[in-house]
Amino acid sequence: MFRHVVLFRWNPDADDAAKAAIAAGLAALPAAIPTIRGYRFGADAGVNEGNWDYAVTADFDDEAGYLVYRDHPAHRQVVVDHIAPAIGDRAAVQFDSRD
Amino acid sequence: MFRHVVLFRWNPDADDAAKAAIAAGLAALPAAIPTIRGYRFGADAGVNEGNWDYAVTADFDDEAGYLVYRDHPAHRQVVVDHIAPAIGDRAAVQFDSRD
Repeated sequence: MFRHVVLFRWNPDADDAAKAAIAAGLAALPAAIPTIRGYRFGADAGVNEGNWDYAVTADFDDEAGYLVYRDHPAHRQVVVDHIAPAIGDRAAVQFDSRD
Repeated sequence: MFRHVVLFRWNPDADDAAKAAIAAGLAALPAAIPTIRGYRFGADAGVNEGNWDYAVTADFDDEAGYLVYRDHPAHRQVVVDHIAPAIGDRAAVQFDSRD
């Protein structure tokens, strides 16, 4: 399995409406992008001090499946319209993981 | 499901032996900590510029299961002995995710 992980910190302009639009946009992606095998995202639960604000994890069979997602127009639209204006920091890793 | 995600950037002193010790230490945790439901970790695949270096994702039934992991002596030992000396930056999020 090839897993994509991205964490965000919001910028001060990211309000509740912006965060709701991000969640709605992300929720539509598994139905739009056939290479997605697993997709989970959400706001930090507030358990630990110093955490970032939001996580998205996406699973694919392989790197090629991830690249379809990364470059898919439906994904790019969510990124450009909703995520990019809201983020202050972004950290991402993609990694291969044996089952 | 309650998912814990952490990303690292290594510091300049983190050599291959240190990274191998981290991977070996993490690999032993699912057998040692019974609340772990899923555990995946690995080095960044090098697909994208600007990525961080390493990811760990751990799944639990709920926040309580995560807290058992967070505070478990086997986990703390890997963190103190191997991870803490190797990291330059750390970003983490825990989030609830409906199936």
